[in-house]
Amino acid sequence: MAEMTAEDAAVLAVDWGTTSLRAFRLAADGTILDRRRAAAGIRAIDDGDFESAFHQIVGDWLPADPARAPQIVLGGMIGSRQGWIEAPYLPCPADPAGLAAAAVSGRMKSGHAFWIAPGLSTQQDGRADVMRGEELQILGALEQLGGGRHLICLPGTHSKWALLEDGIIRDFHTYMTGELFDLLRRHSILGSTIEHAAWSEEGFRDGLAAAGKEGGMLAQLFTVRAGTLLGTLPVEKSGAFLSGLLIGSEVYAAAHNIPAGSEVCIIGNPDLTDLYTPALAARDIRCRQLGEYTGAHGLFRLAKDLLKRG
Amino acid sequence: MAEMTAEDAAVLAVDWGTTSLRAFRLAADGTILDRRRAAAGIRAIDDGDFESAFHQIVGDWLPADPARAPQIVLGGMIGSRQGWIEAPYLPCPADPAGLAAAAVSGRMKSGHAFWIAPGLSTQQDGRADVMRGEELQILGALEQLGGGRHLICLPGTHSKWALLEDGIIRDFHTYMTGELFDLLRRHSILGSTIEHAAWSEEGFRDGLAAAGKEGGMLAQLFTVRAGTLLGTLPVEKSGAFLSGLLIGSEVYAAAHNIPAGSEVCIIGNPDLTDLYTPALAARDIRCRQLGEYTGAHGLFRLAKDLLKRG
Repeated sequence: MAEMTAEDAAVLAVDWGTTSLRAFRLAADGTILDRRRAAAGIRAIDDGDFESAFHQIVGDWLPADPARAPQIVLGGMIGSRQGWIEAPYLPCPADPAGLAAAAVSGRMKSGHAFWIAPGLSTQQDGRADVMRGEELQILGALEQLGGGRHLICLPGTHSKWALLEDGIIRDFHTYMTGELFDLLRRHSILGSTIEHAAWSEEGFRDGLAAAGKEGGMLAQLFTVRAGTLLGTLPVEKSGAFLSGLLIGSEVYAAAHNIPAGSEVCIIGNPDLTDLYTPALAARDIRCRQLGEYTGAHGLFRLAKDLLKRG
Repeated sequence: MAEMTAEDAAVLAVDWGTTSLRAFRLAADGTILDRRRAAAGIRAIDDGDFESAFHQIVGDWLPADPARAPQIVLGGMIGSRQGWIEAPYLPCPADPAGLAAAAVSGRMKSGHAFWIAPGLSTQQDGRADVMRGEELQILGALEQLGGGRHLICLPGTHSKWALLEDGIIRDFHTYMTGELFDLLRRHSILGSTIEHAAWSEEGFRDGLAAAGKEGGMLAQLFTVRAGTLLGTLPVEKSGAFLSGLLIGSEVYAAAHNIPAGSEVCIIGNPDLTDLYTPALAARDIRCRQLGEYTGAHGLFRLAKDLLKRG
């Protein structure tokens, strides 16, 4: 049974991150036949034996004969220095063909050949930036986006904003928004002035409105504490205010050079991306929600380009 | 012996903060006769028995007869809601006489009368801010400063920038610079790309230069990680770079509306304040180091105004 379905799959794609792994079997037309999620992120593989972990999680998707195996393509942190084989960052501008050309090939002890996708880097104006994993989501969205110029936002622990032109990733910026929100709530003096279980739309909107104002972010952050001490910011609102302040600061910085009335395309889970709609609206920018993209579609796209590369 | 020296002191001043306490005996002319430091910050007094802690630390400075005791003036977090008696924040603009008028009086079970100084607040343009403790250092520096208009900076965990006009504290801003530096080094992803023991003048200056540039602070922070991954920022420089980035961002925001060639007066320990000289110079602002001020001089100044109040 496992043998039979294994033969149907054209691509076995694994988006292998720091803390978790998502594996997909895809048909030749890109249809996802099967998917699995595991907690075996690269940080959990402390003996460096990625091959054993791979076989343990998706071994039953592989035929015994390596020659009959689907095309195996991995992406994400598995290509980092701490991963299976390092696939160095590819400098922007980059397109799918370029990413495929920069992919690194390997062969398992079991005889199965595989590819590891590179991450992306940029060093425009002397500013260093990297991404590894998010480029798979962007590649996945290319078809839905079509040609032309697009500004893409992937909110998260490290939010990514990428500029696309006709399928080419021109440049991108990373914002430490999600990580800073978590740090400040858990470890800073602000944590004690936040009622963590509460959410307030009004608090969030007040935070958005404060973003980008006088004093910059270092000063605005302290207003969370001062406001609760002076009674102008209730503790039920302060967590949402902090969220609005940080997301608002990200959007303020990212949208700085965008003409009013522009559109930003957002990829991700609506729980998070829905917060960006009012944040963008506050800067007169329209928001197009593309929905959630797993690494599956981007890796499939890469697999097609890898076939051309041979 | 203790009885004799106790009679010589005119003022017993205690700058009582969250984590530590500094006590001073001052003569009628303001000369510091004796000083003590203890780890008994208000957070350590978990039974709320501040009187016992007070007597334990400076009891031998008091004569048995409360009527012959020096004037006792306390300031700092001891006046917060978590302190001995709450002395509510006094809104700016405020001067020493106003602070004295807003001080709260108490009497110990031992019969000794004492004063607790208020903190300061501001709510200009709807922005909430507070300070409690730093105002004592500013008051202490008033004599050295003289009249006129001065911009004062007190670097630290929560850096304070205050605008003074003829001895009146007009307004102030708090920047979470020191706390954020500590949080990011200890708890964020940046910590792993920093060689903590190393310091680099060049790294610090590069961080200063990056501050205020495109992308804002949320994006610039991530360049610490990206730069080390891409090899453009060595780990021996990255900690100093982060320090420069944060101090530079504080100065960039604080100095935003100051004309070039202005002067900023800095109060604090040279280990920290010396970093602000190049940060200000990078914005064409002159820097006047006032040195370190303990709470002693500010509390003494307050004590004189309290005598007028009676």
